[in-house]
Amino acid sequence: MRIIIIGVGNLATHLSLALQSAGNEIVQVYSRTIDSASSLAAKLDVPFTNQVSEINPNADLYIYALSDDVLESFVQNSIAPDAIHVHTAGSVSIDIFKNYKENYGVFYPLQTFSKIKPVDFSNIPLFIEASNDAALQKLSKLATSISKNVYQINSEQRLKLHIAGVFANNFVNHLYKLASDIATSADIPFDAIKPLIMETAEKIQILRPEESQTGPAKRNDLKVLEKHRELLKNDDEILKLYNQLSDMILKSYQG
Amino acid sequence: MRIIIIGVGNLATHLSLALQSAGNEIVQVYSRTIDSASSLAAKLDVPFTNQVSEINPNADLYIYALSDDVLESFVQNSIAPDAIHVHTAGSVSIDIFKNYKENYGVFYPLQTFSKIKPVDFSNIPLFIEASNDAALQKLSKLATSISKNVYQINSEQRLKLHIAGVFANNFVNHLYKLASDIATSADIPFDAIKPLIMETAEKIQILRPEESQTGPAKRNDLKVLEKHRELLKNDDEILKLYNQLSDMILKSYQG
Repeated sequence: MRIIIIGVGNLATHLSLALQSAGNEIVQVYSRTIDSASSLAAKLDVPFTNQVSEINPNADLYIYALSDDVLESFVQNSIAPDAIHVHTAGSVSIDIFKNYKENYGVFYPLQTFSKIKPVDFSNIPLFIEASNDAALQKLSKLATSISKNVYQINSEQRLKLHIAGVFANNFVNHLYKLASDIATSADIPFDAIKPLIMETAEKIQILRPEESQTGPAKRNDLKVLEKHRELLKNDDEILKLYNQLSDMILKSYQG
Repeated sequence: MRIIIIGVGNLATHLSLALQSAGNEIVQVYSRTIDSASSLAAKLDVPFTNQVSEINPNADLYIYALSDDVLESFVQNSIAPDAIHVHTAGSVSIDIFKNYKENYGVFYPLQTFSKIKPVDFSNIPLFIEASNDAALQKLSKLATSISKNVYQINSEQRLKLHIAGVFANNFVNHLYKLASDIATSADIPFDAIKPLIMETAEKIQILRPEESQTGPAKRNDLKVLEKHRELLKNDDEILKLYNQLSDMILKSYQG
């Protein structure tokens, strides 16, 4: 499959490298910024451009790995009308292509990508959706060439999945931040909490969340909850969050 | 060091096995319930009892791995007045021993223990505190025999650390639960989110929480936040939590 990569962010970078490694042909990289385009193109050893008019029209698949706002206007460019066009966004409907393309879809990897940390794409779940069966078959084949876990879902399911991802990643990371702040305020380095964080994530790989829940709220230990609230009483925001999460856990387990 | 283990929960089990493996002598196991006492004692191949009066008085160290409530009354038993007595609780002051013992302290591992999952104690941070220097030296030596990360902190620091642990483990696990519920409501199996959970924990081992934060709230993407709120509007509790965490992240990054 001959593929054009539109966008050069972390997702575009990791995805295009994985696709190339799996034997797919990356034909060209596009970015508005010539330096970014050239930088990713160099990693892939392929041509690049920052001009929409110079995007190669002879590829089979155009992957739009763009921010939601840019995506909305970019899909309106009339490039390669017979090819398949997909975006990679969690919260954008497949219908964004409706008035502009014939064959289109979504190619959504559920993962958090960073510049400095390599990822093993074979473990990343891929969620695909397409406007017609032929496109779906091609996306499915492409997805299984790089990942062991490929799911076909619609745009509403994907939006819910994206929210689940916000809870499991964005919000969890913010709790790490708060844990770090609280430890640091007691002159304890964040490093001391990292093994607990790792074990918490490892436990959930083999236990259901209900089985792995522990702590004072779970065991209805009101004395400990009171001690914690007393210590947090000078920080309204943290106390509010502590109370809300504790109440949700108390309710789940005490009925 | 000759050690008596009082209590037979997950912490007592993992800790006593680690201490024994490191060459320390577990002399006896005590539990109120004879079956539980016998079960842990069998793993250690040592004697056990469910009678306080039969607890061996000739050990060097008594480790009280009990729930906070039971601990409070148990420390009042006058066993082995010259030995060292420690508890393993995050939110209980060292002073609980004050009126009843001479040499005492705290031996607190920051980790979540489960019955079925073995843990490598060498990576678990241990937090120690003692009533006098001689006791502190002995606890320090014991702690370093099983862990690479030993910290000396006081009871107030430990209480804060326990709160940090509640955020990093108990609350994070509850977010996993919510993510699981949301995914399941869209007919997507929780398994599909597990790689994201793992990567989130792995990233934080090498990046600071501020560096690893991603998502719509971080990048001030109000359109996506609005889509998510719209989908969550029928669940007050989840929506409230979504808004609160998003607002905290928005505020952190938009100033």
